[in-house]
Amino acid sequence: MAPDGAGGEGRGRFITLEGGEGAGKTTLSRALAVEIALAGHPVLRTREPGGAPGAEAVRSLILDRGPWDPVAEAMLHFAARREHVARTIVPALEAGIWVVCDRFADSTLAYQGAGQGLPRDVWERLCDLALGALQPDLTLVLDLTPASGMARALSRGDANRYERQEEGFHRRIREAFLAIAAAEPGRCAVIDAARPPPEVLTAALAAVGERLA
Amino acid sequence: MAPDGAGGEGRGRFITLEGGEGAGKTTLSRALAVEIALAGHPVLRTREPGGAPGAEAVRSLILDRGPWDPVAEAMLHFAARREHVARTIVPALEAGIWVVCDRFADSTLAYQGAGQGLPRDVWERLCDLALGALQPDLTLVLDLTPASGMARALSRGDANRYERQEEGFHRRIREAFLAIAAAEPGRCAVIDAARPPPEVLTAALAAVGERLA
Repeated sequence: MAPDGAGGEGRGRFITLEGGEGAGKTTLSRALAVEIALAGHPVLRTREPGGAPGAEAVRSLILDRGPWDPVAEAMLHFAARREHVARTIVPALEAGIWVVCDRFADSTLAYQGAGQGLPRDVWERLCDLALGALQPDLTLVLDLTPASGMARALSRGDANRYERQEEGFHRRIREAFLAIAAAEPGRCAVIDAARPPPEVLTAALAAVGERLA
Repeated sequence: MAPDGAGGEGRGRFITLEGGEGAGKTTLSRALAVEIALAGHPVLRTREPGGAPGAEAVRSLILDRGPWDPVAEAMLHFAARREHVARTIVPALEAGIWVVCDRFADSTLAYQGAGQGLPRDVWERLCDLALGALQPDLTLVLDLTPASGMARALSRGDANRYERQEEGFHRRIREAFLAIAAAEPGRCAVIDAARPPPEVLTAALAAVGERLA
């Protein structure tokens, strides 16, 4: 099935969660899915890189190996994303299921672009190839200082290749997410992720209510 | 190191071998490398998908899993190719080494394009992203009927995912390689691969002498 950005009455809603390490995306994803289900919508939680069997295999390759050439690494992310979109996200949306996705294309722009110097036009060309017209209906950007985020991420144990980068890298990531949100205010809502999880959820639900009502 | 198509006096030559299954690319690659070395040039034999550690890992993913979404599969091939080009091929060419590569971008156009319906413009956009201006100096297209090629390939034992396709698939692959050669006669030479290996080598050396003298 080809990715398709077309909306429609019975179509589900596509919500992405973005932000640096330790911002609380997984916790929010769980709570948000419960609230969406309670509101009467079928809901699917998924994540990137991964979210489909082939894409999960690419995820392992990206995270466990490397360093990759920056363009090669971006292509791997978009190969996994295409697989995820074609096999998981678009079929779910077309079946009327709401999709809550932990990380999506904005993460590639932040991590590979701002973090590792991938030119923005390469990212745009890969988005166009892999996603066509598909865009999230709402993107929640969980904003946190790199120091707080890394303290949370490292307290979880094993750090992956991205989490082990120095603080300047994580500062650039944060600035990139805020710039994306500023450039697309209709799609993105910034949430202060330093607050306790119940308050983060309340802010997320307010954004969902406002934007997807 | 960024891929770069620039030539130069001390630069090596980039020769690719293309063709269907069982056309004799590996046999010719070995013999051709020996002749190039005897002619006094340092030479590197490599292959695709693969040819660099990360690219070999992507190769396993492509061949052992699947079916992939066609765009995702093409992106995986080009991610591996980018890694191969950036880490192996371009550094070798810049060091004055001749590179003999078993399969390159033409194989993706033939297998994913003609074989699996990938649009040509997707292939062109991926070439542009992954390769920039890099092009083979000479491409030897080993031409063989699908029936002869498959008989040879199957006699080797384990068939991979491409080799197990039906005959119509292999006929489209053959036609695609011949069309590529016809469209780029300055870069490509077609060699009748039904002949015995020493005659195939003689034809290949004649093409090398004519085109890369």
